[in-house]
Amino acid sequence: MTTVGILGGGQLARMLALAGAPLGVRFLVVDSLADACASQVAPLLQADWRDFDALERFAGRIDVATFDFENVPAETAQWLTEHTAVYPNPRALAVSQDRLAEKTLFREIGLGTPAFAAVDSREDLARALETIGFPAVLKTRRLGYDGKGQFRLRSAGDIDAAWAALGPAPLILEAFVPFERELSVIAVRSREGEFRAYPLTQNWHADGILSMSLAPAPDSAALADEAYALARRIAEKLDYVGTFALELFVHQGRLLGNEMAPRVHNSGHWTIEGAPCSQFENHVRAVLGLPLGDTTALGVNVMFNWIGELPESAPVLAEPRAHWHDYGKAPRAGRKVGHATLCAFTAEEMRDRLARVAWALGREDQAAPVLRALG
Amino acid sequence: MTTVGILGGGQLARMLALAGAPLGVRFLVVDSLADACASQVAPLLQADWRDFDALERFAGRIDVATFDFENVPAETAQWLTEHTAVYPNPRALAVSQDRLAEKTLFREIGLGTPAFAAVDSREDLARALETIGFPAVLKTRRLGYDGKGQFRLRSAGDIDAAWAALGPAPLILEAFVPFERELSVIAVRSREGEFRAYPLTQNWHADGILSMSLAPAPDSAALADEAYALARRIAEKLDYVGTFALELFVHQGRLLGNEMAPRVHNSGHWTIEGAPCSQFENHVRAVLGLPLGDTTALGVNVMFNWIGELPESAPVLAEPRAHWHDYGKAPRAGRKVGHATLCAFTAEEMRDRLARVAWALGREDQAAPVLRALG
Repeated sequence: MTTVGILGGGQLARMLALAGAPLGVRFLVVDSLADACASQVAPLLQADWRDFDALERFAGRIDVATFDFENVPAETAQWLTEHTAVYPNPRALAVSQDRLAEKTLFREIGLGTPAFAAVDSREDLARALETIGFPAVLKTRRLGYDGKGQFRLRSAGDIDAAWAALGPAPLILEAFVPFERELSVIAVRSREGEFRAYPLTQNWHADGILSMSLAPAPDSAALADEAYALARRIAEKLDYVGTFALELFVHQGRLLGNEMAPRVHNSGHWTIEGAPCSQFENHVRAVLGLPLGDTTALGVNVMFNWIGELPESAPVLAEPRAHWHDYGKAPRAGRKVGHATLCAFTAEEMRDRLARVAWALGREDQAAPVLRALG
Repeated sequence: MTTVGILGGGQLARMLALAGAPLGVRFLVVDSLADACASQVAPLLQADWRDFDALERFAGRIDVATFDFENVPAETAQWLTEHTAVYPNPRALAVSQDRLAEKTLFREIGLGTPAFAAVDSREDLARALETIGFPAVLKTRRLGYDGKGQFRLRSAGDIDAAWAALGPAPLILEAFVPFERELSVIAVRSREGEFRAYPLTQNWHADGILSMSLAPAPDSAALADEAYALARRIAEKLDYVGTFALELFVHQGRLLGNEMAPRVHNSGHWTIEGAPCSQFENHVRAVLGLPLGDTTALGVNVMFNWIGELPESAPVLAEPRAHWHDYGKAPRAGRKVGHATLCAFTAEEMRDRLARVAWALGREDQAAPVLRALG
C-alpha cells in the first residue's frame, strides 16, 4: 500500500486522489480548512503548513509528498525533503514562486519573455517604465495567481496608484504584450527523466481567471515542437518530477514565456476524458516512479471553467461525450467551483456541441472565442 | 449536496463513488467490515445489514439508497423503502435473488432459457433429471454468485453427491447447455423510463469467475437488437432504475437467458475508459434522476480480471491506452482484487496490444480465447 501526501486540499488534490485511487494509491491531504474539498474523497490532516508537529505526523504516514498549490512556504518544502521523498523538488517550487527567477530561467533556456525589470521601490518603478514603456503590468513577484497581485499601468499618471496598490514588496514590471493567443504546454517528467507532453492547449481568460480551454490548439503544429523542447529544457534544468504547465503567449508568431506552474494545471483538466492518461494520473505515476501514461489527445476537447457558482448541470449531462466536474465547494465570487469538458471526434462536431451547450446554459459569450478558434 | 447511500462496500461501491464524485455527489457506504475497500474513497458506516438502528442513522444521512450486491436481505431493502428512496426497487432485487423467479421472468418476456425445474427434495431432483436429462447443473436458488452453490451432474450416480452438497435448500436444476459463447448486456434505465444499453460484451469465465471481457462483442450485430429489446422488457417489467446486467448464452445462434444482476457488473468495467459515460456514472445518474450518459463504445476494449492477487502493474501501465484498477483489497484465493482494461481503435491494434500485455504478464492462457475471438 502506497500513500501519497498532498499539501493543499483544493480541487487539484481532489482530482489527483480520484485519478490515483484506481492505481491502488491512497492519499493523505494536509490543509488548514476542515472543509477542504479534497477531504470528500481522501483523508484530511487539518493543519497549518507551518505546523511542524503536524507535518511530522504527516511525513510518518506517507511514502511521498507532493503539492496542489505552488505557494507552499519554502521552509515547509525544505523540511519535508529531510523527512520524506518530495516531488517536485523545492527548487522547482521556489523558481515558480518568484516571477523574477521564473522569467530569468525562461531567458536562460532560450524562451523569450516580455521585457521585464525588478522593482523594489517607487524609484525603480519609474526608472523601469522609462525602458519598458507603456502599457506595462506591475506584478508582485510572489504569491500571485489568477490575476491577483497585478496592476496595469497605462501612463505615468498610474505610477502612484500602482505603487500604492502593490508596494512596498518585491515586484516585477513587465511590458504589456498584445499577444495573438495564449497557449499552454502540460507536460510530465518521470523520476528517470522521461518527458512527455500533451498536445498544446489554447486558453482564454476572463478577469485574470482561466475561462475556456481548447485542445489540441488549432493550427499549432508549427509551434508544438518548439514548445515541447522549451518545456523539456525547463524540466531538465529544474530536475522536475511530475506534471507541470508552461503558459505561453504567441506574439507575432513567436512564443513568449508567461509563467510556469509546478503542478497539475487548470488548462489540463480536459485530459481527464480527452487523453488516455490524464495529467492527474500521470502526476501520480511520475511521483511514484511508475511508467508514464499516454499523452495523446483523443479528438477535440473544450473545457468550460465554472467560476463563482455552478450553472445547471442537466444541459451538459444530456449531451453525448460531455463531462461534469463539481468540486464540492461552496459558491463564492471568483472561486473555481467546477468545470465541464466537451469531447468530440472532429472540430465540426465540436462546434455543434459547443454552440448547443453554450446556448442552453446562456454562456454564448464565454464560448464565443472558442467557436471562432474552431473556424 | 446530494448523498447516495450504498449497501455493500466492495469494489463496485468503490467504483460507483469514484465515478460519482465528479458529479459533486457524496457517498455513504454501509458494510459490516471495517476495511471494506470502498471505505478508502468514501465514508463508511460499519454495520450489519440487519442492524436497523444503524440503518436508521444511514437513512437519515442519505438522499437515495442503492446496492453494490444483490443479496441484501429482503427485509432490509423493504425497510429502506419506508425510510428513503431506494433504486433499484426491492422487487428487482428479489427476482434476481431467486434463480427460479428470474428464469420464470425470462420466459415471460420471451427470452428462452435452458430447461429448468424447481427442486426441493431428493425425489424432486431424481424426477427433474428424468425430464431434463444429463448433463445438468443443480444450483441453489438463492445466494449463488461466481460459480458458488453449483453442482454438475453427469449421470445418475451423481445424484446423492449433488443432494448432499446443496440440499436441503430451495434448488433449481438446469439443463447443461453447450453454448457457443457468453454475452452480456449492460444497460441502464432512468427514473423516467429512458433505456440505454452499451454494445454487447463477450465474456469468458474460469472456475465460475469472470476472467476476460471483450466489447463490443465481435459479430454480434445480428443479436444486439434482440438482446437490447429483451433487456428493456425485463427492466420495464421490474420498473427497474439504474444499471443492470443481463447475462446471455448463445446456443445454436439463439440467445438464452442465464441470469440478471441488478447492479453494475464486472463485465461492464470496460465502460470506465471504453465508453463516454461508464456503467458506474450512469447508475449514479439514474438513481439521482439526472440525464443518462452516452453508452456508445469508443473503439475495442478488453478487460482482464485479476483474481486472488494482482500481477505486476508496470507492463500494463507502460502500454498506451491501458488502464489499471487495484481495488485496494488484500489478496485471497478466488477474490476479485482488480482488473485492467486495454483500449484500442481497431481489432488489429487490440490483437497486438493484448498479445504483448499477456506475454509480459505470463497470462497467454487467460488471453488466448479473446485473441481467437478478435480473429
